[in-house]
Amino acid sequence: MKKFKFYCPTKIVFGEGSVVQLRNLITGKYKRILLHYGGGSIKKSGLYHEIIGILKELECEVYELSGVEPNPKLSLVYEGVKLAKEKDIELILAVGGGSVIDSAKAIGIGARYNGDVWDFYTGKSQVKETIPVGVVLTLPATGSEASMGSVITKEDGPDKLAVNDDIIRPEFAIMDPLLTLTLPDKQTFAGVTDILSHIFERYFTHTSNVDLTDHLCEATMKTVIKNAYILKKDPKDIAARAEIMLSGTIAHNGILGMGREDDWSSHSIAHELSAFYGTTHGRSLGIIFPAWMKYVYKENINRFVQFATNVFEVSVVNKTLEEVALEGINSLITFLKDIGVPTSLSEEGLPTDNFDLMAEKAVNDGSLGEFKKFTKEDVVKIYDLAK
Amino acid sequence: MKKFKFYCPTKIVFGEGSVVQLRNLITGKYKRILLHYGGGSIKKSGLYHEIIGILKELECEVYELSGVEPNPKLSLVYEGVKLAKEKDIELILAVGGGSVIDSAKAIGIGARYNGDVWDFYTGKSQVKETIPVGVVLTLPATGSEASMGSVITKEDGPDKLAVNDDIIRPEFAIMDPLLTLTLPDKQTFAGVTDILSHIFERYFTHTSNVDLTDHLCEATMKTVIKNAYILKKDPKDIAARAEIMLSGTIAHNGILGMGREDDWSSHSIAHELSAFYGTTHGRSLGIIFPAWMKYVYKENINRFVQFATNVFEVSVVNKTLEEVALEGINSLITFLKDIGVPTSLSEEGLPTDNFDLMAEKAVNDGSLGEFKKFTKEDVVKIYDLAK
Repeated sequence: MKKFKFYCPTKIVFGEGSVVQLRNLITGKYKRILLHYGGGSIKKSGLYHEIIGILKELECEVYELSGVEPNPKLSLVYEGVKLAKEKDIELILAVGGGSVIDSAKAIGIGARYNGDVWDFYTGKSQVKETIPVGVVLTLPATGSEASMGSVITKEDGPDKLAVNDDIIRPEFAIMDPLLTLTLPDKQTFAGVTDILSHIFERYFTHTSNVDLTDHLCEATMKTVIKNAYILKKDPKDIAARAEIMLSGTIAHNGILGMGREDDWSSHSIAHELSAFYGTTHGRSLGIIFPAWMKYVYKENINRFVQFATNVFEVSVVNKTLEEVALEGINSLITFLKDIGVPTSLSEEGLPTDNFDLMAEKAVNDGSLGEFKKFTKEDVVKIYDLAK
Repeated sequence: MKKFKFYCPTKIVFGEGSVVQLRNLITGKYKRILLHYGGGSIKKSGLYHEIIGILKELECEVYELSGVEPNPKLSLVYEGVKLAKEKDIELILAVGGGSVIDSAKAIGIGARYNGDVWDFYTGKSQVKETIPVGVVLTLPATGSEASMGSVITKEDGPDKLAVNDDIIRPEFAIMDPLLTLTLPDKQTFAGVTDILSHIFERYFTHTSNVDLTDHLCEATMKTVIKNAYILKKDPKDIAARAEIMLSGTIAHNGILGMGREDDWSSHSIAHELSAFYGTTHGRSLGIIFPAWMKYVYKENINRFVQFATNVFEVSVVNKTLEEVALEGINSLITFLKDIGVPTSLSEEGLPTDNFDLMAEKAVNDGSLGEFKKFTKEDVVKIYDLAK
């Protein structure tokens, strides 16, 4: 185990009907609130009206900024920063999934800074302060509701960069699994893949003596896989929705990575699929992760054997370690296919002729990867394995 | 899964040599510090001098209150409250194990209250505020370093009562596994038993649809058991020390109980052994838990089957569910015996003639237990099974 610090002060309020708890979380603390959301889905579901009702009842001044898109944009963040400064906003209430939350986090730090909020993403400046961010989560996937990260896209780069700092963890996250009941399957299972990926990035490590977090990772992976199968059969299974929702938070609030070296190269490699072809983040990860695994498993075959046996219960009888490791990877591929997530470029109908350019972009911040350090050529080979 | 709230803002600073991080945690925030500890062991180990060195270097005003004993006493808390008020203490630094931390928490809330701090423990008053408490942990067991609980004993009752409130979670916990290397086996394994008990109290529940927390509980139990065996062979194994230390925090910071109905009757029943005979808390739990399990397993046999198979890998082939459940309980007994923890009153040399009185005290706050509601007669039978 490596030395580590862990600090996650986000209040989790979980369960059916928990949106009404917004009242207690706000009363006596916040009056001027910026409501931040995406499109019309929260209006259609009635969630918007429920929240506005609570805020009006508490006599809050409510300002609204909607229109957050997947891969949230810097231009909207700038709008939010301007509004938050003008109106002296005290709380940004993000209602939605990871994009809305990441955008709200960016507005929060931007509004308490005299320079350009993009400075935090380029590393030019360090986060010192934020307007508190509250969350009502509608899509379990990114874990942003309790994570230390925010990823924003600058349209005229294009650049997609991240800030990671404990300061930007949301103050509270209201998590009602009922709010996820209407998600289309495609979003549900892209979310499931994102959640699993957050665990993979921590699980596949060379750090030794990490029994506890190994087993906590395996516990969460098994839970996600089992309940994803349940939702594939019955999308209305509220208990399975709850398990997936809570797993999404645990997968990315940092608990599972305590004392481990993590590796985010797959996220970077998958990101280029979203950048080049607009592929949904979770589906990009489904395409890249099996290829990444096939490319790197020999770096630490015992870890992949552990993955196969402890997560997918692959038997080791009469097999070489390599066979067990590969069977684990194939079990993951089977699972992803079963839930309708693509595991290759061809399944998603994506072209295969930009590998050089994509690889160059993926490594353009220097070396990539901890589990195995990648050159551009390595990344090309991973794209090639993903054909 | 039940509705729940979870809020644990304790900063964990973990790893070998992490005591130096005290500097960053205090700088610019606290000047007047109350150093709270037990006996001379932190002086012998050099920890006291290291801490004083850091505090002096930061030009803190340091006040000291030592003498905390197991089952920390209200009289010492009163002394601390008086001192903290007089000196306008800004941070209470608890250096030690659970007793020191619980005592520090009591002083923290007492010093920010005009009435008698005991009011919080009797339920007469509700905690509103505390002086921040910081921790340097030397004994992994109670999980108090990140928990919401404090248990204090009023000598002239005698009463042993608890406060549970998120407000009293420590602000930070420095956890260096090197500090636990010199613990005698008896303390190490009483601690291990306490850690496991905190998981049992959450794991054995009737709440259904708790896949994630079930598996997280099992992950932590397996880690504790495996690493306890390592420490039994080699008490100097620092990696195993680290696993046990981190498990102690996870076992009791609330993560494992999210959305579950928990049950603390075993803790109450075991407590009377400490009250009547001065038995170490962890050893009392070793005596009571197997008896409790034997008494209640039929209430939810599937849960005990799950415990047997998922924690102790008991095979189910050619067995009844009852046989599997009992084999799980017996596996726990074997484990406890292996690490030198008593599993019956006779092994600890304790008398068996006070069952009526002890049971009466155990239930004197009304009904006892959630997994199974106990009358006084039930508790007597559990003591009887523990003979």
